[in-house]
Amino acid sequence: MKIALAQLDYHVGNFEANAAKIIKAINEAKLSGVQLIAFSELAICGYPAWDFLEFDDFIAQCEKSIKTIASHCTGIAAIVGGPCRNPLKNGKNLYNSAWFLSEGTVQQMVHKTLLPTYDVFDEYRYFEPNTQFNCVDYLGQKIAVSICEDLWNLSEDPLYTKNPMDFLIKEHPDFAINIAASPFSFSHDASRMAVLRNNAKKYNIPFFYVNHTGAQTELIFDGASMVVHPDGSYLKMSFFEEEIRSFDLRKIKEGNFPQSDKQGKYELITQALIKGIQDYFSKMGFKKATLGLSGGIDSAVVFALAVKALGAEQVLPILLPSPYTSALSNNEAMTMVKLLGTAHKIIPIAKVMTSYSDLLNPHFEGLKSGLAEENLQARARGTILMAISNKLDYILLNTSNKSEMAVGYSTLYGDSIGAFSVLGDLYKTEVYELADYINKTWNNCIPELIISRAPSAELRPDQKDSDSLPDYSILDAILYQYIENRKGPDEIIQMGYDATTVHKILKLVNQSEYKRFQAPPILRVSDKAFGIGRRLPIVAKYLA
Amino acid sequence: MKIALAQLDYHVGNFEANAAKIIKAINEAKLSGVQLIAFSELAICGYPAWDFLEFDDFIAQCEKSIKTIASHCTGIAAIVGGPCRNPLKNGKNLYNSAWFLSEGTVQQMVHKTLLPTYDVFDEYRYFEPNTQFNCVDYLGQKIAVSICEDLWNLSEDPLYTKNPMDFLIKEHPDFAINIAASPFSFSHDASRMAVLRNNAKKYNIPFFYVNHTGAQTELIFDGASMVVHPDGSYLKMSFFEEEIRSFDLRKIKEGNFPQSDKQGKYELITQALIKGIQDYFSKMGFKKATLGLSGGIDSAVVFALAVKALGAEQVLPILLPSPYTSALSNNEAMTMVKLLGTAHKIIPIAKVMTSYSDLLNPHFEGLKSGLAEENLQARARGTILMAISNKLDYILLNTSNKSEMAVGYSTLYGDSIGAFSVLGDLYKTEVYELADYINKTWNNCIPELIISRAPSAELRPDQKDSDSLPDYSILDAILYQYIENRKGPDEIIQMGYDATTVHKILKLVNQSEYKRFQAPPILRVSDKAFGIGRRLPIVAKYLA
Repeated sequence: MKIALAQLDYHVGNFEANAAKIIKAINEAKLSGVQLIAFSELAICGYPAWDFLEFDDFIAQCEKSIKTIASHCTGIAAIVGGPCRNPLKNGKNLYNSAWFLSEGTVQQMVHKTLLPTYDVFDEYRYFEPNTQFNCVDYLGQKIAVSICEDLWNLSEDPLYTKNPMDFLIKEHPDFAINIAASPFSFSHDASRMAVLRNNAKKYNIPFFYVNHTGAQTELIFDGASMVVHPDGSYLKMSFFEEEIRSFDLRKIKEGNFPQSDKQGKYELITQALIKGIQDYFSKMGFKKATLGLSGGIDSAVVFALAVKALGAEQVLPILLPSPYTSALSNNEAMTMVKLLGTAHKIIPIAKVMTSYSDLLNPHFEGLKSGLAEENLQARARGTILMAISNKLDYILLNTSNKSEMAVGYSTLYGDSIGAFSVLGDLYKTEVYELADYINKTWNNCIPELIISRAPSAELRPDQKDSDSLPDYSILDAILYQYIENRKGPDEIIQMGYDATTVHKILKLVNQSEYKRFQAPPILRVSDKAFGIGRRLPIVAKYLA
Repeated sequence: MKIALAQLDYHVGNFEANAAKIIKAINEAKLSGVQLIAFSELAICGYPAWDFLEFDDFIAQCEKSIKTIASHCTGIAAIVGGPCRNPLKNGKNLYNSAWFLSEGTVQQMVHKTLLPTYDVFDEYRYFEPNTQFNCVDYLGQKIAVSICEDLWNLSEDPLYTKNPMDFLIKEHPDFAINIAASPFSFSHDASRMAVLRNNAKKYNIPFFYVNHTGAQTELIFDGASMVVHPDGSYLKMSFFEEEIRSFDLRKIKEGNFPQSDKQGKYELITQALIKGIQDYFSKMGFKKATLGLSGGIDSAVVFALAVKALGAEQVLPILLPSPYTSALSNNEAMTMVKLLGTAHKIIPIAKVMTSYSDLLNPHFEGLKSGLAEENLQARARGTILMAISNKLDYILLNTSNKSEMAVGYSTLYGDSIGAFSVLGDLYKTEVYELADYINKTWNNCIPELIISRAPSAELRPDQKDSDSLPDYSILDAILYQYIENRKGPDEIIQMGYDATTVHKILKLVNQSEYKRFQAPPILRVSDKAFGIGRRLPIVAKYLA
């Protein structure tokens, strides 16, 4: 049997485009002799559709799509992910299902059993867990079909009380197909490999695994679909690109595939961020990006990524110098503009600052200049960037990093604005490593001085980040333990960090929740990004 | 037996304060002869604690609190809500539990079976559902203890596949206690009444129900704890206030309680919003509020509520007239300031607008004035309000309503800013009704002209909301069908609304998702508020 995995980039709710893409793949596969083609989880409607799944009209559109697609499944079978109404009175009204289509119609549905409800996942919000288990019979083969999380319960501390494969394996399936919607994090491909290998080994059959590719706002799907043999060897498809690849089942059963090299952390992150930028623009119908280019490392990295993602002619960096902006900042920003060959604008903000001061000074009499004045600069810049965005149809890219978002070292409605955040899931120390990777890969497009200078927001004379924060190497290490690893203060202090610093930082993180609540969506590249995957109350008083 | 229900206002993560409050209630109840006192769901840590529940340190603090509280339970028993670690290897690591404490120690735990995972609720994100059912035996009485949602599965379309009470009733309990964390919406008290009556009738025993009161950022708990007899009569405690009330079990078993009058929609909403404002300030440690007072109805209503919640001396309205602001707006805003007796500031924004124009006009050459210029005004106002907030320690109240948030009729980083939104869950037509209620109740503090004038953002000469939107009566009705009732376009059109209008509005709603993503938290008063309870993807292409 010839089996194809279709790793495609869907658009949430764009039924026509998604169905057209699926039907095209089916027709082409049929022409090339494929007998079974598998598409990823909830491919019909895109993932994550979130609360659109609560709309009867949305589900009706899914059903219509499935029917249309089924009508193209003659001489070929397809497995397509889509929601399915629960016919029983009790329980949630939907299943998250794999639809088995052949002979022009729906032959069987397999429902998802294990519903990820953690981090960015909310599946039990919508779906009833499956309780009945049957393999799919097709052309003399017995196929154990499952959906993403269904395979993810073999760990030391299993989240669920059963394993769907334990039921399916009783029918002695010849192989397994898992359709997935598994978003990227820089360590996630390794986790997926381990899970698939564990399953292939435990159940002693080959596993076909097909994932989404492409970005849906903050979630970036990396594809990396694969076939894994019980011997541990695997065949992996491309990262972040659409690909349809077919496999000869007889060959697959033999295993012993040649293994390819792994990609590095920053190679994957770079590809992810580029795809994240590209898909936001293409799915929203936008072309042009703007950003504030400060001469610091964060905006430099965003600038480089935007140019790579959209092309130099589509990116407009804007320099917004204030009286506190150093010559170094202006010079290096301009050097980078020239290196990347984009247009640019320079809009000094001193006069706007003065007009605000004239207006506000009577109300601030007797008070020392401080945070309010620093924030004014950031907000004047934000207002100018948004005016350019509104007037000239540029989409504003946010340039904040994860470290400053964590401790609230940013101005709400000032530098925290933008359509989405490119670097908001990378700690400052990771931004430096990413800059190094970019310079190695793209011909040193980030001037060395931007990388080597001391970080500063330049909101007052001679300001340095290190005036108010510990060294980023320490800050980021503490943040990582707290945010990614959910360690408490005592545990972090026991790792050898200074107690006062730890308490101060954790307090800053929790007190800044109100700022992050209003932050733009953040391209997710780690296992724990700020945003929908990390939900915390604002008025809480824990470590704050 | 004398049973007390303790309806208290907890602070998420503030273990010391929460435990102190619980212990004080236990000691006082004991002195007044109470034998059993019940506290609400997750009282130990506050509700919703959200992802703090993923921190081992947070759970350890819960356990410490429970132990301390248990040590005070001598001569009295207490039921206290708190998380409980799941000792089994499989499944989620926590239960959402009712801890039965007496004789100075933990006697029994009852775990929650039905885990609400919809709207603002994410309980399956954290908790394993219970599968074992036992009543609590105490002083010769058998008590069916359950937790909130456990009673909510008797509807026509049940969300879950079992009813915990069906198991507990087999032990022939004498009465039931349900500990809850059930947030306010203006129709929710009626729903709760119906649920408790259905349960009391079906299982033929009295139900004691204890809820939280007080606000946790956007979620406002209304208390309204009660005892419901199988005969359908009930005793209800106060709305939105802390109260501990004790009941004689023998009397309760007799039923036939005298019934009190129901409160009206806007009476409840007014109380909810006041509590929402008060608790945000008290839990965050803030005192003073500011807002932009435009002379329109939204800011007038927020102004009135803020004065009622915080006191006139704590509220600073700021008039920010532009050249497009009418004399009517300025006059009526000042009339209201005088009526409410607060301080105020008038800060005309023309000069700041000019300084932005001077800066930007060279970049906008040949382009007509339009949206960008309108947004500039809103953002200049936002920047000034935030400067006052930062400098003079005022917390900025957002004044947007649900209709404009729905269709994106607001300026991101302009009028959409603030620490939280007071009216963001009330449609414009509801804001008018609320204004009427406020005027009837508080001595006409909102000038009649503010209510009767045509709504306008006053961002260009003679602008009216009706230039670009249908009448609010039509707009709000369509929005309600789409947002609250999740009706699709065809269903709404079939109700008699103009097809072009319906499609246009639904498109505006879905295209504005990116603005709402960055909106402040919104005090929730309906069954479907924007925010954490309504999750939608930004790049989606559904009805957009």
